[in-house]
Amino acid sequence: MKNVYIIGIGLIGGSMALDIKRLYPKSTIYGIDSDESHLEDAFELNIIDKKAAIKDISNADLVILSIPVDASLEIVGDVLNKISDETLVIDVGSTKRLFCELIENHPKRRNLLATHPIAGTEHSGPKAAVLGLFENKTNIICEVEKTAFKLQERALKLFGELGMRIRYMNPVAHDKHIAYVSHLSHISSFMLGKTVIEKEKNERDIFDMAGSGFESTVRLAKSSPEMWTPIFKQNKDNVLETLDEYIANLKQFKILIEKDDFDAIYHEMKDTNHIKQILKGIE
Amino acid sequence: MKNVYIIGIGLIGGSMALDIKRLYPKSTIYGIDSDESHLEDAFELNIIDKKAAIKDISNADLVILSIPVDASLEIVGDVLNKISDETLVIDVGSTKRLFCELIENHPKRRNLLATHPIAGTEHSGPKAAVLGLFENKTNIICEVEKTAFKLQERALKLFGELGMRIRYMNPVAHDKHIAYVSHLSHISSFMLGKTVIEKEKNERDIFDMAGSGFESTVRLAKSSPEMWTPIFKQNKDNVLETLDEYIANLKQFKILIEKDDFDAIYHEMKDTNHIKQILKGIE
Repeated sequence: MKNVYIIGIGLIGGSMALDIKRLYPKSTIYGIDSDESHLEDAFELNIIDKKAAIKDISNADLVILSIPVDASLEIVGDVLNKISDETLVIDVGSTKRLFCELIENHPKRRNLLATHPIAGTEHSGPKAAVLGLFENKTNIICEVEKTAFKLQERALKLFGELGMRIRYMNPVAHDKHIAYVSHLSHISSFMLGKTVIEKEKNERDIFDMAGSGFESTVRLAKSSPEMWTPIFKQNKDNVLETLDEYIANLKQFKILIEKDDFDAIYHEMKDTNHIKQILKGIE
Repeated sequence: MKNVYIIGIGLIGGSMALDIKRLYPKSTIYGIDSDESHLEDAFELNIIDKKAAIKDISNADLVILSIPVDASLEIVGDVLNKISDETLVIDVGSTKRLFCELIENHPKRRNLLATHPIAGTEHSGPKAAVLGLFENKTNIICEVEKTAFKLQERALKLFGELGMRIRYMNPVAHDKHIAYVSHLSHISSFMLGKTVIEKEKNERDIFDMAGSGFESTVRLAKSSPEMWTPIFKQNKDNVLETLDEYIANLKQFKILIEKDDFDAIYHEMKDTNHIKQILKGIE
């Protein structure tokens, strides 16, 4: 792994760059980013060795495509057109169906592995990049059979070295389930933040009353709108389904309170406490 | 501070007991709890020195009332009837209006300080008690003027030693604002947990896809229904108001997605990112 190009040198791409440099100190990490200040930050933070552009990638051994999912759709064709037959391109976007459909018949489809590493924080940009981000995290791989076997092997070796667990899934199932366990939590958190800010905007002291519980629940409302807007757009149908069910559950809870049916309120919460057992696997 | 009675030896009462013992090693900590197994756990964990009952509290220097808010209403009169003129009773319940109304005309009202320490975790019971829980946390004191001055002084000295910041507020304002910054986050988290469990109950593998973002947003859904049911009951009107606004915001977000108005979606999130600055004070 000599020439590594990271397209989109933010939280995920930057963390990937740091880990690859640690694992392969002799590799050259090239950074590509439409935001010149991000590229400059990444260079100064030693996350990348050199600044580059898409036109340079013909000598790439590995390309990581880690940009917002709308930008991915725009440039992936061009990226595939410019690489050599031996190049491995790994996409790490949070939605997979449209992306996989778009490249389905590209002559270089076999050079690309479609993945979604379940890793990250609410922060973004190269300053948010951290070494070891992917340790013990799940990486979802879609349509593995469409990637050349030798390139699959190289990717899996790298994911192993990063400490990741692998799960295989088709892109349609990925987008459906990720709407529940990731996209919906972002919306619930953003709308919680909005509701509280609207109400308390003139009473800044009120946030003295907020504890770690509020902080935890509203944490995802710090996430990047640049990243999340195209995710909701590409996964519109699934996201709307989760929102319908979430709103229905909130309304039902509200009706139980209105009716003073606090036995039912108790049981709603008691049943949901089951999430403790489920989360044990994540923590 | 010789004889300290903790009524309700759970997360808050137990943590209070641990800190008081650290600060006043010569004090005797008496535990009172309607759950015999909690009392037994607290004794074995050295959180309390002795098991006791309400009838014993006539020799108390300090009583901490740290039980679910419905139980507080039931026993606070009896507690005040049994204490001496010099005893300080500190209530730490999460709702304050009904509680303060109930004791308003009690002959021993001056012996009680109504507080709400903004501290805790999603865990409960004596095993969840930790030393130093209150360090740098906010304590909201209601109707301070109704507590005898000498007893106020004793309480403030203790809160200072625990490392707490003090905020004064009337009980009605407390209940209104805490609905936004605490009660609503618990409901949003419980309903998120419910929505995802309902959908994915037959597909346990799906939770492999959940990352730290989901974990953070759903954390409060592990909270105790015994504690939270009476809170929602006592703060019904405020909680319903927050739920109305939260549901309205979610619906509006949903409509924007349906209409493909992703510019507006972007700005909704961008505006709410302001929570970053607000949360800086909490972290």
